[in-house]
Amino acid sequence: MPGNAATTNTSKASIFSARQARLRQALEKAELRALVLNPGPSLIYLTGLHFHLMERPIVFILPVAGDPLLVLPELEQAKVEQLAFRAQPIFYNEEPSTWPAQFQQAAITAELSGARVGVEPGRLRFLELRLLEAAAPQACFLSAEDSLSELRMYKDEGELACMRKAVQIAQNALTSTLPVIRSGITERELAAELTLQLFRNGSDSEVPFTPIVSTGPNSANPHATPTDRRLAKGDLLVIDWGASYQGYISDITRTYAIDEVEAELQKIAALVEASNSAGRAAARPGITASAVDLAARAVIASAGYGEFFIHRTGHGIGMEGHEPPYIRQGNSMLLAPGMTFTVEPGIYLPGRGGVRIEDDVVITVDGVESLTDLPRRLQTIHLS
Amino acid sequence: MPGNAATTNTSKASIFSARQARLRQALEKAELRALVLNPGPSLIYLTGLHFHLMERPIVFILPVAGDPLLVLPELEQAKVEQLAFRAQPIFYNEEPSTWPAQFQQAAITAELSGARVGVEPGRLRFLELRLLEAAAPQACFLSAEDSLSELRMYKDEGELACMRKAVQIAQNALTSTLPVIRSGITERELAAELTLQLFRNGSDSEVPFTPIVSTGPNSANPHATPTDRRLAKGDLLVIDWGASYQGYISDITRTYAIDEVEAELQKIAALVEASNSAGRAAARPGITASAVDLAARAVIASAGYGEFFIHRTGHGIGMEGHEPPYIRQGNSMLLAPGMTFTVEPGIYLPGRGGVRIEDDVVITVDGVESLTDLPRRLQTIHLS
Repeated sequence: MPGNAATTNTSKASIFSARQARLRQALEKAELRALVLNPGPSLIYLTGLHFHLMERPIVFILPVAGDPLLVLPELEQAKVEQLAFRAQPIFYNEEPSTWPAQFQQAAITAELSGARVGVEPGRLRFLELRLLEAAAPQACFLSAEDSLSELRMYKDEGELACMRKAVQIAQNALTSTLPVIRSGITERELAAELTLQLFRNGSDSEVPFTPIVSTGPNSANPHATPTDRRLAKGDLLVIDWGASYQGYISDITRTYAIDEVEAELQKIAALVEASNSAGRAAARPGITASAVDLAARAVIASAGYGEFFIHRTGHGIGMEGHEPPYIRQGNSMLLAPGMTFTVEPGIYLPGRGGVRIEDDVVITVDGVESLTDLPRRLQTIHLS
Repeated sequence: MPGNAATTNTSKASIFSARQARLRQALEKAELRALVLNPGPSLIYLTGLHFHLMERPIVFILPVAGDPLLVLPELEQAKVEQLAFRAQPIFYNEEPSTWPAQFQQAAITAELSGARVGVEPGRLRFLELRLLEAAAPQACFLSAEDSLSELRMYKDEGELACMRKAVQIAQNALTSTLPVIRSGITERELAAELTLQLFRNGSDSEVPFTPIVSTGPNSANPHATPTDRRLAKGDLLVIDWGASYQGYISDITRTYAIDEVEAELQKIAALVEASNSAGRAAARPGITASAVDLAARAVIASAGYGEFFIHRTGHGIGMEGHEPPYIRQGNSMLLAPGMTFTVEPGIYLPGRGGVRIEDDVVITVDGVESLTDLPRRLQTIHLS
C-alpha cells in the first residue's frame, strides 16, 4: 500500500520491485525495450515517487534489462536518497539549455536508440517527448497503455482497502453536507462545503476532482462546473464527488429532488435507478465490459430515452478517476476479479435537468460488489 | 475576470475575443498558422472553457484567420452552447477508433496541413499530439510558449484583484492553522488542517497544490511531500501553501522554529530573510529576471552558503503555480509592469533542516509591490 504509515520501507521496496518486475515482463511481451514515465499515478504505483508535474521535465526510465534511471532537477535529490530500490539518477540544473545533454546521457545509458519505447499517452507531454526524441532520434515512441493497465487494472487487497476507505470518506462527507442545503445556496457554495467535509472526514489533501454540483437546467450537463446559480424548488440536484485516500479514489454521484419536481424528471430518475441496478447486476467475471454497458443502456433505451443517455456507462477507477476498464459499447475486454469501475448511467433533458446515479464496484471471484451504498432512489429535499 | 459572478456574459465575450485577437497577432509574429490547446489555464484564459484533462482528448484550435474550432466529446455539448464567442465544434462519440476522423476534419477545416502549428509543451500530451500528427502529417508542431506568455505574463487589474484575494485567503488560512500546532502533530495532519482552512477562508474548490509541510530533517527537501513524521522540539517547520481564487493563485512559504533550534539553523533563517528582502528590493521595471536572482543569491553566497541554495529564486505566478517569468541565473528577460512572480530563496542543510521564505510580488510602474505581508522573521512556536 503506497504511503501507508504501517508499511515498512522493506515491504514497500518489495512491492515496488515486484511491480517493476511484472511490468518488465509486460514490456517484453509488447516488444518494448523500455518504458518512460513522467510524474503521475503510474510512477507512484511503480516507485512511490511523488513529484508535482510542472514546467521542469522529470522522467523515469524502466528498461527491460538493467537499473531504472531518473532524469530530474537537482533540487529533488532528497527524494532520490529515500528510494526503496536501485535507480540511477541524472540531475540537471535550473538552466533549460543544459537539459538536452542530460536526456542524451539517459538515452545512451538506457540504450533507447533504435528501440521501441513505451510511454503513457495521457500523461507524457510534448515537453518530455521532444527532449526524448532529440536524445534518441532513432527510437520509436509508442503507447504502453496496455502494459500498464495489465498491472494497474487488477487491485490487490491493500489497494482495495484504500478504495473502501475513500468511499467511506466520501459518503460520510456527503452525509455531513446535506444538512446545509437551504433555499438560495449556490452550486459553488455547496461544492465548497462538500470539499471541506471531504477533508474533515479524512481525504488526502488533494481531492481527485472538484465536486460537480449542478442544479436545475445545469444538471442536464454531465460535466458541469459549479456556478453561482441558486438552488430552487423544482430543481434536480446532481452531486458527483469523490475522496482520495493514500492515492486511491472514490467517485460517486447521487441525484436529489428539491421539493416537487415535474413528473417526467421523476420518471427519468426511476429509469436511471433501474439502469444502474441492471448494470451492476450484469457485472461479473468473464463477461465483456460492453455487456455491462448494454444491460444499463437497454433499460433506458427501451423506455425511449436512449438519445438522452449521452455517455458510456462507466470507467475504471483506482489511482485515477478515469482508467481502464472503460464500460462502453464496443469494449470486448473481459471483466475479471480485482477490476474496479463505476456504473453511472444518466439521462439528460436539455434545458430541464438530468439524473445520474454512480456507484463504484469491484469484480469478485463470482460476481460483483458495490463499494458504495448510499441510497440510490430519488430523495426529496425540502427547502427551509 | 474569468468566472466573476458580477461580470456579464457580454463583457466576458469581449475579454475572450480581445485575448484571442492579441494571441493571433503574437502567432503571426511567430510565423505560426494556428495554436492548438488542450484543457488547462491557457484554454480558460482564452475561452473561459473548463474541462477535466482526462482520457478523452479535447483540443481547441485557434487559427490566425477564421473561427476557432473545438474537437470534443459529444457529452460536452452543453458547454459549447454557453460559449461567449463563435467557434465550430466537432463532436466525437465514446468509440476511440472514430476519433482520428474527427481530428482529420478539424485539421482540414483549420488548414493545418503543411503549417507551422503552435502547442503548449508543458500541457499538450502524446495522446493529442499523435492524433494531430496523423490528421496533419505535413504539419510542424512547435512550442508556442513565448506567444502565450507574451499575453499571460502581464496581469490586468481584474487578474491582480483575484491574486490579491488568493493571497488574503491563504494568509488567513495560515493564521487560522497556527493555533493547532502542538507537540506530536504530524506533517500530514497539519497539511490537512491547512487545506481545510483554505476552503473555509474561501479558496476555490481546487487548491493550486497540496501544501508542503516539512519538519526537522525533512525541511531540507524543498519539494517534500507531507509524511507521518511528528513535530518535535528543535525542528524547523517549513510551510509552503497557496489558495486559488477564480482560477488565480497564491504561493507562499514561511519557516518557523519549534522551541529552540540550533544556532546554525537560526543563522540560515536570518540569511534567507535578508536574501528575500534583497531579491524583492532589486525587482523593478527594466532590470532582468536574472538580476533579481543574483541579488537574492549574493546574500547567501557571500555568507558561504551558496551551495545550499539549490534552486532558482522564483517563478512567475498567476493562473499557474509555475509560469514565466522564471527568476533564475541566465534569464535575460526584462521585468515590466504587471508581471507577477515569487521571490523565494532558501538554504537547505541535508539531514538537519531548511529555511525558505516566499513572497508573491507584482512589478509596478516604478518598482515592486509584495502582495504577501505575513511576518518573514523566524518566529518561534512553543509546543504545549
